[in-house]
Amino acid sequence: MTGIAAANRVAIARLQQAAITLTGVRPAREAIAGLRDHLVLHSGPPITWDRMCGPQRGAVIGACLYEGWAKTADDAALLAESGQLSFEPCHHHAAVGPMAGIITASMAVFTLENRTFGVPGYASINMGLGRVLRMGAYDDSVIERLRFMNGPLAALLDAAISRAGGVDTKNLIAQALAMGDECHNRHKAVTALFLRTLAPHLAVSRAPDLERAFDFMIANENFFLNIAMATCKATLDAAQGIAGSTVVTTMARNGTDFGIRVSGTGDLWFTAPAPRVKGLYFPGFGPDDANPDLGDSAITETAGLGAFALAAAPAIVQFVGGTPRLAVETTQRMYEITLAEHETFRIPALDFRGVPLGIDVRKVVETGIVPTIDTGIAHREPGVGQVGAGFSEAPMACFVQALEALAAR
Amino acid sequence: MTGIAAANRVAIARLQQAAITLTGVRPAREAIAGLRDHLVLHSGPPITWDRMCGPQRGAVIGACLYEGWAKTADDAALLAESGQLSFEPCHHHAAVGPMAGIITASMAVFTLENRTFGVPGYASINMGLGRVLRMGAYDDSVIERLRFMNGPLAALLDAAISRAGGVDTKNLIAQALAMGDECHNRHKAVTALFLRTLAPHLAVSRAPDLERAFDFMIANENFFLNIAMATCKATLDAAQGIAGSTVVTTMARNGTDFGIRVSGTGDLWFTAPAPRVKGLYFPGFGPDDANPDLGDSAITETAGLGAFALAAAPAIVQFVGGTPRLAVETTQRMYEITLAEHETFRIPALDFRGVPLGIDVRKVVETGIVPTIDTGIAHREPGVGQVGAGFSEAPMACFVQALEALAAR
Repeated sequence: MTGIAAANRVAIARLQQAAITLTGVRPAREAIAGLRDHLVLHSGPPITWDRMCGPQRGAVIGACLYEGWAKTADDAALLAESGQLSFEPCHHHAAVGPMAGIITASMAVFTLENRTFGVPGYASINMGLGRVLRMGAYDDSVIERLRFMNGPLAALLDAAISRAGGVDTKNLIAQALAMGDECHNRHKAVTALFLRTLAPHLAVSRAPDLERAFDFMIANENFFLNIAMATCKATLDAAQGIAGSTVVTTMARNGTDFGIRVSGTGDLWFTAPAPRVKGLYFPGFGPDDANPDLGDSAITETAGLGAFALAAAPAIVQFVGGTPRLAVETTQRMYEITLAEHETFRIPALDFRGVPLGIDVRKVVETGIVPTIDTGIAHREPGVGQVGAGFSEAPMACFVQALEALAAR
Repeated sequence: MTGIAAANRVAIARLQQAAITLTGVRPAREAIAGLRDHLVLHSGPPITWDRMCGPQRGAVIGACLYEGWAKTADDAALLAESGQLSFEPCHHHAAVGPMAGIITASMAVFTLENRTFGVPGYASINMGLGRVLRMGAYDDSVIERLRFMNGPLAALLDAAISRAGGVDTKNLIAQALAMGDECHNRHKAVTALFLRTLAPHLAVSRAPDLERAFDFMIANENFFLNIAMATCKATLDAAQGIAGSTVVTTMARNGTDFGIRVSGTGDLWFTAPAPRVKGLYFPGFGPDDANPDLGDSAITETAGLGAFALAAAPAIVQFVGGTPRLAVETTQRMYEITLAEHETFRIPALDFRGVPLGIDVRKVVETGIVPTIDTGIAHREPGVGQVGAGFSEAPMACFVQALEALAAR
């Protein structure tokens, strides 16, 4: 057990010492190693086309249309069925994506770097609300918006980030935790801080698309979500592969399976069926419309944000349900299954206590307390979009399997 | 007493129903009725040059240099002593100013309107940190910055606000209360939201001063302070002059006197010596350096913000002192002396309870609880600047006088 304790100390130290810089926005084919043509990255643990949920299938179809691999949705589905597309998790490529989490070669990605450890992190640009690729929409308006985002917007952002000398995203998140964000479902403050940081550098470009770029980003209070996710990814990957460590380094869902990975077991996934999300539904929708839990965004909880930091974001209960007291209790419960308190991410209302950091699979199994995730709810049919938001519980089976695998080593 | 209760119901209803729009930025001589040459508006209740505190005197000198009424600081002081300048409170002209609160004809002011009642509100542009006019600095760098602020920056902002169709400042403040601001000493979120709102409209100007304008506003997390103050002013002035009402409509300090006005006694001021501020000092400064309480910014507490909303801003204790628990207790104590809870300004951490609204002079005298104000501390010498921040207590003597005057009617 001394070996485990020492290994976990190393893992926690790596998480604390992360220094994350957003360095630019680049085409995925340039940024992400091995992102070849006809390779589709997706959220969650590995999955094949035949087991994919509706929103993820829809997003694959959209990616095929956007890339020009297919001319129609039917052709795209045939292509996917034919085995001519490859599917791999974003997580295998230092990347993360919300909901369907689809990334292909011609899409632009934010490029981040954990400068303490030389570890990269990538994420697509968030598309906003309504008919969006991550919810499986693929109509002409989606393809047009993809062209704008991955073309003019990406170029403007890349130039502005470069002119700003990069953006310290860990610092922005730390500020936002004192401003009502938990940085999973509420990014209102951090998005405003991010825009404030880049605004002068965007403004000087005098590019013709400047106003559309501002309007696009301003219309989406969760614009920063994908950047936060990549920040967490570059943080957690530095703590991967420490022999003996029981610290969870990945929690991710593909809408069919929920999967976790643990530092001491390296690249192994431990999976169970994706749970249902309990929460508030938008008018006209209910539990029968909901897809099971979906997306890589649980990387935020894995790094101490999201539901783990819920006490920092009492206003979020209007969106995900519950009360401000429940928000505090959720954070307090997560201290039971974590090894440390974050030295940088602090919650003013809890007397500046650090967020719960470093999920320990042993503690989860011993206490029976599983990680809580606050998350959006996707419609189970492709392209309908978000139908609500609420809380999901990571399946205990994943942690039991992981503990057995650790014990076997 | 029924008359009082009815009068107070009217006053509270007017405060609740305020709808405040920022309409532009205009030269004070155009915006503010009666703002003639050689008239100097200042913070707090009426005062003469011989009784003015150091920072306010310094700011008067700066205004004389900026306006070209004097060529040197000595000439400006002589001019003030000679009686050739007139001094009137900002509050007598629908205006407010932080700290020294000096407004003269060539300065630009934000123009706001309470559209429910057709009541205006004006405030100067916030100059930021360091050597600033409101702290009594008047060197060449101050005059140069005044030229920039009141010239190119004012023009850019006016055009952007106009292009945005005005800005609903009450709505921005309501959002910021869920984002860690109390909107007196912490405007970090609301300033970011304000910049987010105007950024596309600023960007399209393609003006040569655009980058300096962005940099100027981004460097100052309290840029929105003056706009918040004018929002409160336009709100409270609509509740002025209701016969029988015991609701406080003004709390203001000139660094020598603290003064309040009450709805039922119209334009009468009730004054007492300005109190000392208890708080945290910046390195190298202490209580002996502090000027007594100064500025019109206590208008925010009068409208339910600032210390009254402190529970919304636990992180502010790092700046003004105390603990997150003290922040909650301060808000809770203010419910004891107010008549209502704000229907729009709500505090998520208090289960979305409205901020305490409508200070009742009777309740203050009966409970012995005076309004708490969280505020900056100015150095007592002109031009040194801010030396700390903390809490002041409105003098009970003001409320006793006001109650006696109300009783005499």
